[in-house]
Amino acid sequence: MRLSHSFVKTLHDAPKDETARGAQYLSRAGYVHKELAGVYDYLPLGLRVLDNIKAIVRDELDAIGCQEILLSTLQNPEPWQKTDRWDIEKMDVWFRTELAAGGELGLAPTHEEPITNLMKTYINSYKDLPLAAYQIQTKFRNELRAKSGIMRTREFIMKDLYSFAATEAQHDEFYHKAETAYKKIYDRLGIGEDTYQTFASGGVFAKYSHEFQTLTDIGEDTVYYNADRSVVLNEEVLNDEVLAELGVKREELQSAKAAEVGNIFTLKTKYSAPLGLEFMDQDCKKKPVLMGCYGIGISRVMGVIAEKYADDKGLVWPEQVAPYKYYLISIGEAGTKKAEELYVGHEDDVLYDDRDLRPGEKFADADLIGLPYRVIVSDRGLEKNEIEVMNRATGETKIFPADTFNFKTIAF
Amino acid sequence: MRLSHSFVKTLHDAPKDETARGAQYLSRAGYVHKELAGVYDYLPLGLRVLDNIKAIVRDELDAIGCQEILLSTLQNPEPWQKTDRWDIEKMDVWFRTELAAGGELGLAPTHEEPITNLMKTYINSYKDLPLAAYQIQTKFRNELRAKSGIMRTREFIMKDLYSFAATEAQHDEFYHKAETAYKKIYDRLGIGEDTYQTFASGGVFAKYSHEFQTLTDIGEDTVYYNADRSVVLNEEVLNDEVLAELGVKREELQSAKAAEVGNIFTLKTKYSAPLGLEFMDQDCKKKPVLMGCYGIGISRVMGVIAEKYADDKGLVWPEQVAPYKYYLISIGEAGTKKAEELYVGHEDDVLYDDRDLRPGEKFADADLIGLPYRVIVSDRGLEKNEIEVMNRATGETKIFPADTFNFKTIAF
Repeated sequence: MRLSHSFVKTLHDAPKDETARGAQYLSRAGYVHKELAGVYDYLPLGLRVLDNIKAIVRDELDAIGCQEILLSTLQNPEPWQKTDRWDIEKMDVWFRTELAAGGELGLAPTHEEPITNLMKTYINSYKDLPLAAYQIQTKFRNELRAKSGIMRTREFIMKDLYSFAATEAQHDEFYHKAETAYKKIYDRLGIGEDTYQTFASGGVFAKYSHEFQTLTDIGEDTVYYNADRSVVLNEEVLNDEVLAELGVKREELQSAKAAEVGNIFTLKTKYSAPLGLEFMDQDCKKKPVLMGCYGIGISRVMGVIAEKYADDKGLVWPEQVAPYKYYLISIGEAGTKKAEELYVGHEDDVLYDDRDLRPGEKFADADLIGLPYRVIVSDRGLEKNEIEVMNRATGETKIFPADTFNFKTIAF
Repeated sequence: MRLSHSFVKTLHDAPKDETARGAQYLSRAGYVHKELAGVYDYLPLGLRVLDNIKAIVRDELDAIGCQEILLSTLQNPEPWQKTDRWDIEKMDVWFRTELAAGGELGLAPTHEEPITNLMKTYINSYKDLPLAAYQIQTKFRNELRAKSGIMRTREFIMKDLYSFAATEAQHDEFYHKAETAYKKIYDRLGIGEDTYQTFASGGVFAKYSHEFQTLTDIGEDTVYYNADRSVVLNEEVLNDEVLAELGVKREELQSAKAAEVGNIFTLKTKYSAPLGLEFMDQDCKKKPVLMGCYGIGISRVMGVIAEKYADDKGLVWPEQVAPYKYYLISIGEAGTKKAEELYVGHEDDVLYDDRDLRPGEKFADADLIGLPYRVIVSDRGLEKNEIEVMNRATGETKIFPADTFNFKTIAF
């Protein structure tokens, strides 16, 4: 995209109440626009980041046989009453609304109930199992306090996956596939090295659940880990019983701040039993389906990545999620002529700063927007047959010959 | 996709209150699942249709320089109060909700107010204009009565585009570009021949608006047109004054039922004036920005196409929006072996009915699901080196040599 054609401009100030550094940059660089506390619009650059994250998540889930659907936001109270999650005392994040035609509805904060209900139409026999379906959809949670920019909001984009199995073995097999898919996803998102599968409380029905936690100073959680990080615990399960079971001693554990970027739960029959999702087994007996659920907050992950890698100049996007790979800056007449030539055919990878601005302003915007590579094509450089490329994450600079320059050959 | 891997099965019955034929088929064929009146889930086949429609819309809007964003659902009352559209008496389709932290919010039924507000951050000078931004997003309207399946719902997916101009000439130029883009969109969606740009009431600020109406017996509207359809009027503007202005006589007009598939409005300063969206003009005077809005209901269009082309056997999708292009049926042992070979590498174009069912059941499902081409690979056919292909829309059948068969060479 040409910056001269973009309606978004970088801003000098972030909204006053935006305290996290990455969140300030996301506003100032024009990725998001704050509507109200915990409610954001996504501008063209921000939407591209979301789309990149979604594409990676879809790709890995499709690879393990998951089927994509799209469930509704508006919720009938009935199934939620059956599982005892309709009352505000039981689930305090409900947004409620009233039908003009009469009757109360909720805005879905999660979708276990409707998907369990939906599957009653499609699961009848053990032959229909196992199966897994997911969606990427906007969810609503009536948080008392929203914070950390797009990391914890009232309206957010989530990937939620649900699995359905006939036996514990079937469930476990899929659960492990999902664990592996999640690790691949975080690797591809550029946060794999600092993201750990941690033991967390599983609630009433399963001993443990697993969270995926990314180490970062901005995180709201504290995790405890041993030296090789083969065991990582959430604070809530740090007790003698759990430590004994996992075979680690408290004094062997270090702590770090972390942000949750996903979670996976074994639900057993928590939703299928009250909602009557049963299958006819090989022994001709009806049994409740065994379920699991697997979440990744798409917009939250974008926020975590923004916070984790931000430096004192702006955002620093990993290549795989960056809205564009290259920030192309033209300086001078010959520089502009050459930059125009280079841009053609690379519109989808290159954010081209073709604006009539001083070089210093372009450099500052390049740093703030945080694309992986800054490419400078200037009159002075071209005189020496040089194009300068800077790696945003490391600050390292390389010179490439201008006459044979090709974006694809950039490597650091 | 292999149907043996799909969790969705075709159903014998549609929901009891689903009266429109296309809507019944959408439920029975497994494109949608009804949550409550006017609220639907989209299953894998339905999501693919939505994605195809979205891709066409995006492509044509990007081609005329529109920039994609994503605005929030949750709405602060303030800007809507300024334009006098917050009161239920003024806009009766609001869903309202309450913040746990205190304060009333609305679920956006449209987005003129928030985008006008947003642009106050980015539009300052005549140099920033013209510009156009759009989103594809879920909207909520508290309709007293929902009807015709996914054609008129309480929760629906809409593309809404907004244009911003400094002068009438600038506005008109974009408006005409949008008209042309809309015509291309309907052509590519397979409804171009029966979709007409019609004169409708423009409300207070513009003399006319334009609707795009698709002729179909299921439509809720009546349109009037002359023999060559160079003039098409919505019922609401069929009066002597308008007829005189357009130079047509009432007796020259025929009527037909039609369904609205889009609309475009000149808004002038209806929203920019009360919300204070101004720009500094070349004469150094501040002036309100001239706006236009341009809607296409993505899920509604899916419903209109379903209704318009359905026949007595099921759905009939135009090629460009069909979830898959080919419905591949294997019959017998050799047929299955050959079908498996053909399927490889075409997973994204082919819905492969590899289920262990009688041929008659597969044929019925093929008709109900309504993909453009049914491809039968059977033992009996292969003995004669034949693969039979049927065109779902016309019922025409062609025989292709099995040994050189290639999906890409199918043509009718």
